[in-house]
Amino acid sequence: MKPLKVAVLGCGSVGSQVVRLLDEQAGDLTARVGAPLELVGVAVRRLDAPREVKVPEGLLTTDAEELVTRADLVVEVIGGIEPARSLILRALDHGASVVTANKALLAADGPALYAAADLAARDLFYEAAVAGAIPILRPLRESLAGDRVTRVLGIVNGTTNFILDKMDTAGSGFAEALEEAQELGYAEADPTADVEGFDAAAKAAILASLAFHSRVTVDDVHREGISEVTAADVQSAREMGSVVKLLAIAELRGGEAGEAVAVRVHPAMIPRSHPLASVREAFNAVFVESEAAGELMFYGPGAGGSPTASAVLGDLVTVARNQLAGTRGPGESAYAERPVLPMGETVTRYHVAIDVDDRAGVLAAVANAFADQGVSIQTVKQEGRGLDAQLVVVSHSATDAQLAATVDQLRTMDAVREVTSVMRVEGGVE
Amino acid sequence: MKPLKVAVLGCGSVGSQVVRLLDEQAGDLTARVGAPLELVGVAVRRLDAPREVKVPEGLLTTDAEELVTRADLVVEVIGGIEPARSLILRALDHGASVVTANKALLAADGPALYAAADLAARDLFYEAAVAGAIPILRPLRESLAGDRVTRVLGIVNGTTNFILDKMDTAGSGFAEALEEAQELGYAEADPTADVEGFDAAAKAAILASLAFHSRVTVDDVHREGISEVTAADVQSAREMGSVVKLLAIAELRGGEAGEAVAVRVHPAMIPRSHPLASVREAFNAVFVESEAAGELMFYGPGAGGSPTASAVLGDLVTVARNQLAGTRGPGESAYAERPVLPMGETVTRYHVAIDVDDRAGVLAAVANAFADQGVSIQTVKQEGRGLDAQLVVVSHSATDAQLAATVDQLRTMDAVREVTSVMRVEGGVE
Repeated sequence: MKPLKVAVLGCGSVGSQVVRLLDEQAGDLTARVGAPLELVGVAVRRLDAPREVKVPEGLLTTDAEELVTRADLVVEVIGGIEPARSLILRALDHGASVVTANKALLAADGPALYAAADLAARDLFYEAAVAGAIPILRPLRESLAGDRVTRVLGIVNGTTNFILDKMDTAGSGFAEALEEAQELGYAEADPTADVEGFDAAAKAAILASLAFHSRVTVDDVHREGISEVTAADVQSAREMGSVVKLLAIAELRGGEAGEAVAVRVHPAMIPRSHPLASVREAFNAVFVESEAAGELMFYGPGAGGSPTASAVLGDLVTVARNQLAGTRGPGESAYAERPVLPMGETVTRYHVAIDVDDRAGVLAAVANAFADQGVSIQTVKQEGRGLDAQLVVVSHSATDAQLAATVDQLRTMDAVREVTSVMRVEGGVE
Repeated sequence: MKPLKVAVLGCGSVGSQVVRLLDEQAGDLTARVGAPLELVGVAVRRLDAPREVKVPEGLLTTDAEELVTRADLVVEVIGGIEPARSLILRALDHGASVVTANKALLAADGPALYAAADLAARDLFYEAAVAGAIPILRPLRESLAGDRVTRVLGIVNGTTNFILDKMDTAGSGFAEALEEAQELGYAEADPTADVEGFDAAAKAAILASLAFHSRVTVDDVHREGISEVTAADVQSAREMGSVVKLLAIAELRGGEAGEAVAVRVHPAMIPRSHPLASVREAFNAVFVESEAAGELMFYGPGAGGSPTASAVLGDLVTVARNQLAGTRGPGESAYAERPVLPMGETVTRYHVAIDVDDRAGVLAAVANAFADQGVSIQTVKQEGRGLDAQLVVVSHSATDAQLAATVDQLRTMDAVREVTSVMRVEGGVE
């Protein structure tokens, strides 16, 4: 068979592993695709930069724009918005199928790219964009295509999971755990994208789009990071048999005006008995609830050059097979056109720890604050501490607006000295 | 769009849920496929049997042979070898694509069926045949197509996992735990297929074929069930921080004569820190090790009408889309043609508990028995008990033949009163 020409854009930690595997697995890839995959070029910014892999003589180029015009299959692992977007559009326009790991681009501008793929009748695949090596997009898009997904809960950022895990197991504070993550290479020097939830929010948008067959962009995602999670929060979670995780949550919500999607990233307490609670260190996992299949979980390494390259190459085999067969895989599926719910209308539960005066009537006053906002209480735990007392209240389900208003009201009360911990509670029965 | 005609063969626990979901999800299925899926018939043995679902007037038929000739898509959920095989072949021959959940048939005679699908240029999909709702075959076949899978460890039978979990958590004996499983509907009145590992062996063959791109049938699978697992075995596992699971194991093994596949089903001790150890009750999970992706796990309900129907419908959407596009998905991939290793040459580790005379020289004699067979010892634990002592030996890796010969030799020794527990140890570092 005539070889299919592959261009790789970017030769960093993922790109170099793609190049390595294309070489090492060449025989298997040929057998699985039905034709050889021939690397015709690797686009880089600087020809003389140090690399993890030896790229064959003559294949490195700084002219990515030219390279994509002479490839059948283009792998985009540059990341960021530009020049990645222009190069993908140009590749599709020239009849190439594209595999990308670019979550930021897809979460910001996916629909325009999916439309370009439709127009070109080519594939645009992106399994590696969410949760690294873990096959999650293909299962959502294909395996669960006959089912009705109702909720996706994901630990989709390894850096923050590593930090929260250290805070849980070693009792570290946030700053200390972040420093350890940086020393071990799990966190970057500027950790903002991970720690403040931007990375997870992009993945949440992609997961929500696929799960609910609707357009969801990163701007639709309510986002809170973990930089304000304290050792006290983690301890408080521990005392109620829970653990703090940064969750990407996408849910289908009914309503008078029809179904809507709620999508958010924030730290939350989940019970230790929940399958996601046992996801340790920098691992990722995505927990899916659907009507017929029930509860599924997908677990594995969420980042790293080699795992991400595995996901890229899995997609590459599929799009190569499709191109040989003159067909394409499923494109964007946004037929359901469900609107995205504002965070205030999203239903959740709160865990609130409050330092209060230890005198008669305080519990009643606190309970009234919840009742005033229409929030019912699941449990209250009171601990006396000399003049003070601490109340830990876990609510039943209510809208985030009701719950936030409750916390605001608590803060104005004379008997409340300080609201010491506020965190959402997920992964339980509503 | 012109509807695609769907025939469902069998209306038991899975078939009835397929019929229900085809009706309830009709709108979504149409949008996802690109054409309506029209149920044209449901083949049953008896028209008047009680059913979980109301099948629309006129669609029930006892003439499955006629039904398959007038369908575009055939769902086979009868199970067993015949008439399922003949009906699938007939359906393919008449140009229908087929979705089946029939693990026994595929594990016994898969290659003939895959060849028939190739000849007819139609899809034969079977995600539901292994681990119910858990998407595992599609990830192995497609998501990991650019990677090199080296091992698959699966808990793929819910009945035996439920029984072993009860033995672990409640301290039950096998008979008692089986009885509870039967009362709760997790085990059948005749539990042989589950308890003796026949069901898991069929799934192991399917997993091994896909993971290693080679033909593996159920006859190639070394099979041991759990009926001889004792409360003492489970207790012994607990004492070494492990838990007993029935594992389906498929491994790639190097060797002088080239790579081979080792495939087996047997109870094994795995460390409690292994992700499979936390799979409770009747849940299933498949743990995959591959070179680039590393360790992945797929978790969920492994059986049940509705979860299995979810997997069937996921496949149905794909094969329907393929048929509309005039294409088909990946067929059998057996290009690697790796031979299957006999069990004796399979590498594993043994945990052996022995009651011995409590006198000098016994430990040395036992150690010699291991050394005689070329097996090195990882740990020995000795517990004195009056006149007796108990030795618990965990070996390093060796071939199963060496390990079995060691146990045989131990049994002949004067100082050995009884070998009280022999079990393989998996899921650790070799």
